[in-house]
Amino acid sequence: MFAVTILGNNSAIPTLDRHPTAQIVTCNDQLLLVDCGEGTQIQIAKYRIRRSKIRYIFISHLHGDHYFGLIGLLNTFSLMGRTEPLSVYAPPELQAILQLQLDAGGTQLKYELAFIPLTAGYSGVILEDKDLVVSCFPTQHRISCFGFSIEMQKRKRKLIPEQAKVYEIPAAYYSKLQEGADYLRKDGTLVKNDWVTLPPCKGKRYVYCADTLYDVSLLPWLSGADMIYHETTYLHELEARAAERFHSTTVQAASLAASAKAQRLLIGHFSSKYTDLQPFLEETRPIFPETYIAEEGTTYII
Amino acid sequence: MFAVTILGNNSAIPTLDRHPTAQIVTCNDQLLLVDCGEGTQIQIAKYRIRRSKIRYIFISHLHGDHYFGLIGLLNTFSLMGRTEPLSVYAPPELQAILQLQLDAGGTQLKYELAFIPLTAGYSGVILEDKDLVVSCFPTQHRISCFGFSIEMQKRKRKLIPEQAKVYEIPAAYYSKLQEGADYLRKDGTLVKNDWVTLPPCKGKRYVYCADTLYDVSLLPWLSGADMIYHETTYLHELEARAAERFHSTTVQAASLAASAKAQRLLIGHFSSKYTDLQPFLEETRPIFPETYIAEEGTTYII
Repeated sequence: MFAVTILGNNSAIPTLDRHPTAQIVTCNDQLLLVDCGEGTQIQIAKYRIRRSKIRYIFISHLHGDHYFGLIGLLNTFSLMGRTEPLSVYAPPELQAILQLQLDAGGTQLKYELAFIPLTAGYSGVILEDKDLVVSCFPTQHRISCFGFSIEMQKRKRKLIPEQAKVYEIPAAYYSKLQEGADYLRKDGTLVKNDWVTLPPCKGKRYVYCADTLYDVSLLPWLSGADMIYHETTYLHELEARAAERFHSTTVQAASLAASAKAQRLLIGHFSSKYTDLQPFLEETRPIFPETYIAEEGTTYII
Repeated sequence: MFAVTILGNNSAIPTLDRHPTAQIVTCNDQLLLVDCGEGTQIQIAKYRIRRSKIRYIFISHLHGDHYFGLIGLLNTFSLMGRTEPLSVYAPPELQAILQLQLDAGGTQLKYELAFIPLTAGYSGVILEDKDLVVSCFPTQHRISCFGFSIEMQKRKRKLIPEQAKVYEIPAAYYSKLQEGADYLRKDGTLVKNDWVTLPPCKGKRYVYCADTLYDVSLLPWLSGADMIYHETTYLHELEARAAERFHSTTVQAASLAASAKAQRLLIGHFSSKYTDLQPFLEETRPIFPETYIAEEGTTYII
């Protein structure tokens, strides 16, 4: 299971039915939280996310609509008795902000909180776990901002059934082969795993572009992605305003997804001025048909 | 108009239908915000509070459920183009927390934000405006914490109609007399205002006790109040736990209101463990019949 669940799809000013940015990426039995606007902990409860499974949190940048909900969530984890460690990847300034608030409340978290600072401009792998590889890359915004590329690792090697038959390996042992085991035949000869399997095929990839100006230099990160999330704060007619505020439009996001030959595009971070989101699809789909509104409470399989 | 509107009545962990502490006190055309838990700006929108009328914000203490929503609200005020100044009264540590977050986001507020630090243990008047006098007093909690006494000033002097008649002042002039004006008679003699009026009678008073251990030393602040808000985090059976966590129970809040000879008691800050709030009334009303649950979205005339 590799999927993303939208908890908020609005830009800076929350509205009654649209919350600031937060997304849950599910990777098998692990949950990642990407951005954490105000009220995220309530959205997590509303959509019955298994909050105890959240092991990693990624904050793209320090505009409030992407992180003001974090301190409340960290606090609630502690009040609810969490003991599993938690890692937060974020711009360095966030660490002091969190610590001051914990100190002011006399709060000792009941779990280990690791803070991994993302230095302005950095790009590269920031996390490798059994199931996933996460990389960050800078986007062009008013302040230091990061996108995240989340790739689910395929753990199972690809079996070559013809070869397995040549070595007379029983089918019952195939799942062990996929896990990388060698096979010892009854006559004492060893069949090495890589004689009968190929390395795991490349995993699926979700690329979250955070807040950004329209920027073709992101293409190497987006190229071939199974799903891209790209902001569309404004419709096409407000292209000038988008540029001025380091945001993007429908046409820009869809063009990037098309150039990247991505499978699908999720759009969000809509300006509060829009109540009807249908025009966002009308402007993107002619350019990139596989575009979807990031609907709050909806899970998209990657 | 002197009233309090409840925006949140829950303790630390928000639930889906109960939010952390925040209250709007309406005093004629001015609004005061007392505490500002996470999501307060959304509650303000939901209950159609005229947010631009908020001129003063009072933060009782720096546990997150009383202030995590403040930075988001301050930010939104600016994004919405507020220009009127705003004053925040809070424990001193909050100033650096706010400033760090504004700096990290590269945010320049578009309005003047005054921060008035409430030093631990201080009690006394902190604000005198044309309509109101606000005092703070320390409560006993795990960290420095303040209650607030908000008194609406009666501006109009009390007319003595018999005396006004003695001096042959026309009834059309009575409203001027109530505003404090003298009266010049046609024969040139001056009727001094205090010959025909008495000072304004004492204004109504709302006392917000924030988070607190059961503490009879609060009585001088509560005595004779028109409305008291007192937390009842727990029912009576959890008195020991309440004490241990510096909180109060139903029986304790009702007893204080009775001893204070207050007019009415609002109770709130309910532990998330309770889904049914009816028992809170069943335990308080036998001791203090004029007790009400602080219901979210409800306005109580003081």
